[in-house]
Amino acid sequence: MQFGLRLVTQAVLCKTQRVLLSARSLGTSSPRFLKHQPENWFSKRGKRQTSAGNTMAEVDPKIDAILQPLRDAVKQQGDIVRKLKEEKAPEIDIKRAVADLKTKKKALEDKELELEPKDAQFDRVKMEDLLKQRFFYDQAFAIYGGVNGLYDFGPMGCAMKANLLNAWRKHFILEEQMLEVDCSMLTPEPVLIASGHVERFSDYMVKDMKNGQCFRADHLIEAHLEKLLTDKKLADDVKEKAAKILSVIDGLTKEEMGSIMKTYNMKSPVSGNDLSEPVAFNLMFSTSIGPTGTVKGYLRPETAQGIFVNFKRLLEFNQGKLPFAAAQIGNSFRNEISPRSGLIRVREFTMAEIEHFLDPEDKSHPRFKDVADLRIPLHSACNQLDGKPVQVMTLGEAVEQKIINNQTLGYFMGRIYLFMTKCGVDPTRFRFRQHMSNEMAHYACDCWDAECKTSYGWIECVGCADRSCYDLKQHQKATGVTLSASKQLPEPKTVEFVEPQMQKGVIGKAFKKDGKAVIDFIAAMDKEEVEAMDRALNDRNVSIFCREFAVTVNGQEFKITPEMVSIKRYEKTVHVEDITPGVIEPSFGIGRIMYAIFEHSYRQREGDEQRRYFSLPPVIAPYKCSVLPLSGKAELDTIVSQLSKALTNLDISHKVDDSGGSIGRRYARTDAIAIPFGITVDFDSLKEPHTATLRERDTMKQIRASVDELPQIVSDLANGRRSWEDVLSKYPLFEQQESSK
Amino acid sequence: MQFGLRLVTQAVLCKTQRVLLSARSLGTSSPRFLKHQPENWFSKRGKRQTSAGNTMAEVDPKIDAILQPLRDAVKQQGDIVRKLKEEKAPEIDIKRAVADLKTKKKALEDKELELEPKDAQFDRVKMEDLLKQRFFYDQAFAIYGGVNGLYDFGPMGCAMKANLLNAWRKHFILEEQMLEVDCSMLTPEPVLIASGHVERFSDYMVKDMKNGQCFRADHLIEAHLEKLLTDKKLADDVKEKAAKILSVIDGLTKEEMGSIMKTYNMKSPVSGNDLSEPVAFNLMFSTSIGPTGTVKGYLRPETAQGIFVNFKRLLEFNQGKLPFAAAQIGNSFRNEISPRSGLIRVREFTMAEIEHFLDPEDKSHPRFKDVADLRIPLHSACNQLDGKPVQVMTLGEAVEQKIINNQTLGYFMGRIYLFMTKCGVDPTRFRFRQHMSNEMAHYACDCWDAECKTSYGWIECVGCADRSCYDLKQHQKATGVTLSASKQLPEPKTVEFVEPQMQKGVIGKAFKKDGKAVIDFIAAMDKEEVEAMDRALNDRNVSIFCREFAVTVNGQEFKITPEMVSIKRYEKTVHVEDITPGVIEPSFGIGRIMYAIFEHSYRQREGDEQRRYFSLPPVIAPYKCSVLPLSGKAELDTIVSQLSKALTNLDISHKVDDSGGSIGRRYARTDAIAIPFGITVDFDSLKEPHTATLRERDTMKQIRASVDELPQIVSDLANGRRSWEDVLSKYPLFEQQESSK
Repeated sequence: MQFGLRLVTQAVLCKTQRVLLSARSLGTSSPRFLKHQPENWFSKRGKRQTSAGNTMAEVDPKIDAILQPLRDAVKQQGDIVRKLKEEKAPEIDIKRAVADLKTKKKALEDKELELEPKDAQFDRVKMEDLLKQRFFYDQAFAIYGGVNGLYDFGPMGCAMKANLLNAWRKHFILEEQMLEVDCSMLTPEPVLIASGHVERFSDYMVKDMKNGQCFRADHLIEAHLEKLLTDKKLADDVKEKAAKILSVIDGLTKEEMGSIMKTYNMKSPVSGNDLSEPVAFNLMFSTSIGPTGTVKGYLRPETAQGIFVNFKRLLEFNQGKLPFAAAQIGNSFRNEISPRSGLIRVREFTMAEIEHFLDPEDKSHPRFKDVADLRIPLHSACNQLDGKPVQVMTLGEAVEQKIINNQTLGYFMGRIYLFMTKCGVDPTRFRFRQHMSNEMAHYACDCWDAECKTSYGWIECVGCADRSCYDLKQHQKATGVTLSASKQLPEPKTVEFVEPQMQKGVIGKAFKKDGKAVIDFIAAMDKEEVEAMDRALNDRNVSIFCREFAVTVNGQEFKITPEMVSIKRYEKTVHVEDITPGVIEPSFGIGRIMYAIFEHSYRQREGDEQRRYFSLPPVIAPYKCSVLPLSGKAELDTIVSQLSKALTNLDISHKVDDSGGSIGRRYARTDAIAIPFGITVDFDSLKEPHTATLRERDTMKQIRASVDELPQIVSDLANGRRSWEDVLSKYPLFEQQESSK
Repeated sequence: MQFGLRLVTQAVLCKTQRVLLSARSLGTSSPRFLKHQPENWFSKRGKRQTSAGNTMAEVDPKIDAILQPLRDAVKQQGDIVRKLKEEKAPEIDIKRAVADLKTKKKALEDKELELEPKDAQFDRVKMEDLLKQRFFYDQAFAIYGGVNGLYDFGPMGCAMKANLLNAWRKHFILEEQMLEVDCSMLTPEPVLIASGHVERFSDYMVKDMKNGQCFRADHLIEAHLEKLLTDKKLADDVKEKAAKILSVIDGLTKEEMGSIMKTYNMKSPVSGNDLSEPVAFNLMFSTSIGPTGTVKGYLRPETAQGIFVNFKRLLEFNQGKLPFAAAQIGNSFRNEISPRSGLIRVREFTMAEIEHFLDPEDKSHPRFKDVADLRIPLHSACNQLDGKPVQVMTLGEAVEQKIINNQTLGYFMGRIYLFMTKCGVDPTRFRFRQHMSNEMAHYACDCWDAECKTSYGWIECVGCADRSCYDLKQHQKATGVTLSASKQLPEPKTVEFVEPQMQKGVIGKAFKKDGKAVIDFIAAMDKEEVEAMDRALNDRNVSIFCREFAVTVNGQEFKITPEMVSIKRYEKTVHVEDITPGVIEPSFGIGRIMYAIFEHSYRQREGDEQRRYFSLPPVIAPYKCSVLPLSGKAELDTIVSQLSKALTNLDISHKVDDSGGSIGRRYARTDAIAIPFGITVDFDSLKEPHTATLRERDTMKQIRASVDELPQIVSDLANGRRSWEDVLSKYPLFEQQESSK
């Protein structure tokens, strides 16, 4: 608990730091860049591919006894890390201790997974066959040999995706009155320089000098050294040196990696050929906009930036008032080095992102009470450090105990949970995992991933982060456009203003063509920065001729001297205050959610393993209802078209299946595409009053009701206004043996 | 009529030609590549920017008298062109006659536009101000200076777009049971080589050698020569030579353009600097997929190819049966050289495309009768050649008279008309314009553009083309994968098969590493091609040592000789026949449709030009209803939230506006964002039984009805189940003076 608190404090402090951490140390280990597509998700380090998994289930005391020593080891090492951090020990010592901690966590997670009851039923290959066969989705451009990481959705996947997005739009945008935007995917470079993607959204790569094959540099070094360490005859000093490198592998610079590769004479593990120096490989797809080839652009790696650059317009649209949320659904692109694992790790994917802008000093939420009593499995950073399992608790408790940083973050976590379970995610295979301090972006206050358990392990499907004011400040700095909101003060107050007074002539003369950019940069400085400049330029301990203050504009450093800027100070009584809003960002990976739902809803009929189907909830099922005439006889047609028309009027998507084949075979076919309800018109339907049967997919039970009533019953069932149990209790059961033979 | 027929026949013949027209002559003047984004839409040639415009209106006899001589001149020249074509005159003569025809058509269109009654009301700048102010859409990345041709949709535009797409999905996909797909935008190069985009989706460009500014080569030459021709002292032979070049400007090769530029010593018209040689500038955005940089890809320039490459899966999903239609909604990208005209001409845009696959020998449509009686303004190729105005006729007549090639094409034209007018396109500013033979792709049978009249002139919003079997055949050729359907024959027939028997060893030895590609190419040849090869290889008039047949594989020519291939012939009785389906392609530019709707629905209140608004039909209005409490008094709140809850239950999107301001000002605000209905809760509402007023945006009339009834009334109005006139006649009118002051 205590540590959880401190972690938050650290992160908050972090965002006010002026110096960015080095590119590499943020690299892809920043959660901003990891979400939905972590590079090393399934790497052999596999920090998240295995897991506790015992979210809602009871813990077996025998298993617990085996795990306890491993848990203790994690806790012990966690305590060492804490202590070193508290003592502000040298960074290298902390890094080494963290590396040790990771090894111990991995041992615990591996054992946990090993001891978990295996889901004997689940066969991924068979499920994927069914998905392909019914064209939910399949590899794109397959007739051209296919391209890794690109998928096409067929009619069933497309309908399901459209339904999922509609449900999302209703659950978030309409119910919460968010402002939806639809922004350009092509993005000019300066936007993504400001967001940090150009500099940091990359991995280092080396190339085989002969055949051009590419490897991730850190993976390559790691593999080489780990192989080396298996040699038992290795001298102790060599061993120690290799282990030392391994413990800091995540923080190596390009130059360090190059020199290590030289020292150990590393070659391509595949061909044995020489390798190039490490080069940064940015994961964004680049292109050039317009005919001259001079305007560099990228395909957006996330939809969020489109919202940030429209902040001013959105605030205005909301009549200047905070808080408000904007949302966007759209495609993003990441040029993964080696995409695999189906929909989990792709190069083009649909996201749905929310940016909730709020007063950073008031993160309460008026509707938090609506979710406060939800009991949700939480895997806090603190528990992870202690080697403890996932903990089920109410959101109210979690916020109160400061496990979750604030109400608004907690509110969205609750809404995410409700959305996911409504759409078919199994609540027993769902958890929120909190980022540890070494995973968290330097500007994030708190970050939780909604993870679903699949045959690939726990996968992140939704990220939910408190991103503080980072993004707006970055764009403000890059453009000089003020991105703030006015906050009405409870009472007027006197404020001291500091304003840089520039000698533009002097600056212009000193910096020539860069003069204007420097002037704009100084004009856009915040109070804190101006104070720092003031201190430097008026430091009486330094000769006036030596005083200077360095600013970095467009990657170039400029030295500001006292004759360029003086500082004006004055006081003013203000009734409103300009604040840069904080932002809470729930961010959904639609393809990953769909994949988790497929796994969680995949079923086989007991005793007939050929009958495989998806038990999708009606809200996202491609069709809500099938209409099946028992035979091809013309007299049944009138009733079939009467039903079809009535369903259309009620906006119930349905499929009339009047193809041949036994009724059992047709049920199997409609089950396979997840149709939850089926109306069968049989020969008894011809008798007055006309009746037909209604079958529910999961229970396979059927009732008989009047043809006039049935469409409304289906509509009520499909829209969740009525339960199948209720229908079963009101209408006579219809008994029939099903067979797909 | 007769010519219309011949034109169609020509096009049909065209598609069986083996030799592709040169890249340049198809170039961007191919309708495949022009649709939605014609390069020279607003160029000074402006062949479509002006127009008859008198679609539905009566013709003024005085105006007619002025236009008649111009019409006659067009007809006369049109006849000359026809005659030359009939006589198979030299191509250069035909080209020159067509150039003359264009000049005469332009004179007619200019005069027509000049004589048209000006729409005094319309002020585009004011309309665009309103669109920006209410954040329907605005330039993307504006705080970074913006990027031409990229737009962001704000909350209102986004909601309208979502409603428009939902209406489209309902009107086309659900009502016609089409198979929707959602395919990758990133597209590997081979797919777009097969479709012809890599070779032909480009313009020639020249660059200023000093400052890098780019110009379209043909535009530059044209401007230079036209300026030259204004010199009255110019010698006759020079004049004639320039005129000759101008008449063939659309068909010049890269080399010809380069040599002309040299001859005339052309420089940059802006800087006077030297210019580069013409280079092909492909309008696709290119990128590279994966880390090696060796897999070239593009952002798709249209959604259609995603459907074609999935044809096999879709046919299978449809249980092998023809006809069926597939559809896709999604974004496409075109790197326009100089985007302008707002949403009309952009670099990233949403399309909705349908590919209706059918038996090329049976293009009837079972539901054609549903649209046969629609009277629609048609501007046939024949009438365009004759200088005649647009003709209003029923689709039934047009198909019967073969003005429209077939029922299925006519059916979709009717469905397009119904969709467009339902969504707010003004039927008096709508027409279908048929492509002339020189605009039509070589493989298209018939092609009609649905055009809307705007302040930019007539703009193409939907293309509707019969594309024959072109696309599937291209992909089949490129991949060797058979893309055909089985057609049940009415009775069994005996068919002669010809099959190339290859000496793979000989071919492999001759062509080395290309051997496999050549073998695959020959194996994928259709019957006609095999016959041609047979004729060449067994031509007894030629010595066996000189016989050869050239095939072009991956852009390289290979000579097939008799020892490589022999032809096996045999007969078989068949019950089914493999056919390559034909395809009818309606293709919608969503941004353009939205823009046309904005112009067609933009209104100003009479006598109060500050009150500007959009009269969007409820089906696409961002919100359907507003709820306005007359004052901020708490007692009105209960009724407001009761209404809001009831509207939510009926899925009616609505906006509660409880901000201050007079009710008139609030009406003006809700009008500006096109909310069609407004419920006002006033002090009379507090009396039992509770009532409130309902206002309709366009008439500004109000009725009074019970609070219990109102939500259902609004729902019926919004969903088109009830008309406002009907409501007006059933409830007491509520009289109130509106003022926005």
